[in-house]
Amino acid sequence: MGESFGNYTLGLDGEVMPYVDCANIACGFHASDPHVMRHTVRLAVEHGVKVGAHPAYPDLMGFGRRSMACSPAEVEDLVLYQIGALAGICQAEGTAVRYVKPHGALYNDMARDPELLRAVMRAVTSYDPSLPLMLMATADPEPSRQLAAEMGIAIWFETFADRAYDAGGHLVSRRLPGAVHHDQATIVAQAVSLARGEPLAAIDGTPLQLPCDTLCVHGDNPESVAAVRAIREAFDKLDRA
Amino acid sequence: MGESFGNYTLGLDGEVMPYVDCANIACGFHASDPHVMRHTVRLAVEHGVKVGAHPAYPDLMGFGRRSMACSPAEVEDLVLYQIGALAGICQAEGTAVRYVKPHGALYNDMARDPELLRAVMRAVTSYDPSLPLMLMATADPEPSRQLAAEMGIAIWFETFADRAYDAGGHLVSRRLPGAVHHDQATIVAQAVSLARGEPLAAIDGTPLQLPCDTLCVHGDNPESVAAVRAIREAFDKLDRA
Amino acid sequence: MGESFGNYTLGLDGEVMPYVDCANIACGFHASDPHVMRHTVRLAVEHGVKVGAHPAYPDLMGFGRRSMACSPAEVEDLVLYQIGALAGICQAEGTAVRYVKPHGALYNDMARDPELLRAVMRAVTSYDPSLPLMLMATADPEPSRQLAAEMGIAIWFETFADRAYDAGGHLVSRRLPGAVHHDQATIVAQAVSLARGEPLAAIDGTPLQLPCDTLCVHGDNPESVAAVRAIREAFDKLDRA
Amino acid sequence: MGESFGNYTLGLDGEVMPYVDCANIACGFHASDPHVMRHTVRLAVEHGVKVGAHPAYPDLMGFGRRSMACSPAEVEDLVLYQIGALAGICQAEGTAVRYVKPHGALYNDMARDPELLRAVMRAVTSYDPSLPLMLMATADPEPSRQLAAEMGIAIWFETFADRAYDAGGHLVSRRLPGAVHHDQATIVAQAVSLARGEPLAAIDGTPLQLPCDTLCVHGDNPESVAAVRAIREAFDKLDRA
Repeated sequence: MGESFGNYTLGLDGEVMPYVDCANIACGFHASDPHVMRHTVRLAVEHGVKVGAHPAYPDLMGFGRRSMACSPAEVEDLVLYQIGALAGICQAEGTAVRYVKPHGALYNDMARDPELLRAVMRAVTSYDPSLPLMLMATADPEPSRQLAAEMGIAIWFETFADRAYDAGGHLVSRRLPGAVHHDQATIVAQAVSLARGEPLAAIDGTPLQLPCDTLCVHGDNPESVAAVRAIREAFDKLDRA
Repeated sequence: MGESFGNYTLGLDGEVMPYVDCANIACGFHASDPHVMRHTVRLAVEHGVKVGAHPAYPDLMGFGRRSMACSPAEVEDLVLYQIGALAGICQAEGTAVRYVKPHGALYNDMARDPELLRAVMRAVTSYDPSLPLMLMATADPEPSRQLAAEMGIAIWFETFADRAYDAGGHLVSRRLPGAVHHDQATIVAQAVSLARGEPLAAIDGTPLQLPCDTLCVHGDNPESVAAVRAIREAFDKLDRA
Repeated sequence: MGESFGNYTLGLDGEVMPYVDCANIACGFHASDPHVMRHTVRLAVEHGVKVGAHPAYPDLMGFGRRSMACSPAEVEDLVLYQIGALAGICQAEGTAVRYVKPHGALYNDMARDPELLRAVMRAVTSYDPSLPLMLMATADPEPSRQLAAEMGIAIWFETFADRAYDAGGHLVSRRLPGAVHHDQATIVAQAVSLARGEPLAAIDGTPLQLPCDTLCVHGDNPESVAAVRAIREAFDKLDRA
Repeated sequence: MGESFGNYTLGLDGEVMPYVDCANIACGFHASDPHVMRHTVRLAVEHGVKVGAHPAYPDLMGFGRRSMACSPAEVEDLVLYQIGALAGICQAEGTAVRYVKPHGALYNDMARDPELLRAVMRAVTSYDPSLPLMLMATADPEPSRQLAAEMGIAIWFETFADRAYDAGGHLVSRRLPGAVHHDQATIVAQAVSLARGEPLAAIDGTPLQLPCDTLCVHGDNPESVAAVRAIREAFDKLDRA
């Protein structure tokens, strides 16, 4: 959330905020600016939503979606800077950064490169060792859990309700057919399975057990917003049951 | 300090840091980047120097020296962002931001425009009401003191040892002759007078009493560094006397 | 036009381009990026629309709407850079920059500050002395005409169909009531009067004669687009008459 | 050259310009700004030096030295933008861009990725099909020559006088011992061999024949400047001989 910038508006933050528990808030490197961040944090506070830092590569033109060959030390410092900047704004609004989820290419690159992942972990723990870091869930979470234990950091595995997985527990590339679920019932069913810890069906039909601490939803188009509401309703029913 | 950026080096931070009590550290808007900030904060910690945030207009090309018609609300948020970013890096290095001194054109603009000054004060107090804000000393500090009391903020009046003042207590413009002292003895004498609370002679000879909580020195050329050392030696003698 | 940037979309360029003669195309300083510029120039070429450079202060976050205290020499060079950048893209698309209209705060600042205006004129004439520069029309165009003659530059006076003027021929501030016309018939009538060289009624009723070489329309909301079409239809009728 | 930026100075342009034939001039994406570019082009004109565009990835903080996953279409447009921007400044100074040499990571990436190389070639030929593009020389220049013929572009192979080559004609990584020549006599001898079309000794002793249309020198430290002068003197002797 908070991915508007200056004169540019992006996302339906006002419509999504009432339905989520946590908001990944852009920190000015791939999107956002101090004014947008302030507004977004205020919106999160109004709705009792936890604020997460969403740091990214310094690439506004590419929206943080282009890998950049930053060194681990550079990544560590740019993550720290962005967490701090958002934390400053949170402090002024009577809240705090509750977790960290890197954005876009940085999120993907750290899933592939253990040196980058360690760098991000160092940034988070040096800032606040109690702050959890979100990682993309995979079918084999053990290596990440071991690294997290070694680095002294809490991790939250993130899953997606509207994306298909392959048998290895990786997201199917958006370039392939069937990668994105558009049917709301399918999305809600996947969200419920993930929340209950039940296995999904991978795109080839294999049963797939994913660790799931948090569920990612998007708020940049009306369909996504409708799906978010439907998931929230389904979860409310689960809670009441 | 910390005004290097990426591949560009600026300032003699390593030579000045041992002689100062406080370091105004650039926050990435007029100069610096997360990596340089980390390095500079570490240097300050090594020398037991207090870290001050040095926020600026978002103008890297102009080094924050060009006024920009930012609204008070924009200024408030960009100051808050920069304080937070530096604070994040401080937290990782086991220290904290101890005061705020806006940079360049923002510093000058807020001295002229009460709405901007209030905006900066709101940024600082909303972040941490115990954090002092540096203001340029003038011959009539009362209005600033009253505003500070009203806003609930501590202020530190800043003076210069190497600049001439006019009778109103404003710095003589660099474009006028005699604006900058180059003679080290003159600089040290002015520093000592300011530190002792004695009046200076304004450029027209009028005696000038300035409030002085902190003394600004520069570290971007060898002459300045030599002056910093000489001032430090003079102050050490005062302390022993 | 061409004010999208990276992942951000702004403006209804595709809907407006068929109805205009000239397109002011952003050059990457207040908006746009090389990719967006390429796309926009291509669209202009498809519709036989003249390309104008729309250079601005280097302030993406503020969309070029905040005055910046750039020196005349800085302004000269940043205008030249932006004209060249757009011209490079035009050359690849088989067209060329046909005129220059500075954007936002730069446009307003040069109307107030003759040194800035001369700087912009130097940029344009040093690039190509046959390139016209757009200036805001006023009730007293003679000083601008004399300066243009002295600098050896062609000027085009620009007027607005959807804005009210005061008796001095300046736009009424958007903060005042009646500043912007929303009624399409009023807009079309003002466009036709301007095109025919007939006087308008200033907001206080005074007759106002404005020089008019070009008429500015906007393309960032559906109402504006509808007004552009209506003006085009009215002009087509005039031509046939 | 022209790699200063705003308040930051880099390089000894004034000392090197008198001794070179061609100057690769930064275009504002990895370094430089419009004002620095103007000054640098003026300096080149004074010394009768050919201006080359030195376009880069949009990464000022990383000085264009970090690979960025830009698409070929993005690279094409950002190269075109930068060529145009420099050409605009050249036009104001009575000269023109004479060739193109991409900078840093972009230069290396296009040597590895034929799609990026084609994108750069398209940018250059769409701007001006007579403009040569510099490529890093290798022991096997035929594939590049064929591609250039197919794309209708002239290429200049670039070699280095102060760097060791491996037997495949690639620069030895700076991380390996012996990668950079520091001895002036060695540098001059390599420059003369390259200029005469004589084979070099690769780092393992193998004779290495490299195509050489241009010789790269640096101007960012006093040793490099001394080497440039020594090479110029050696070439002047060759010419007289």
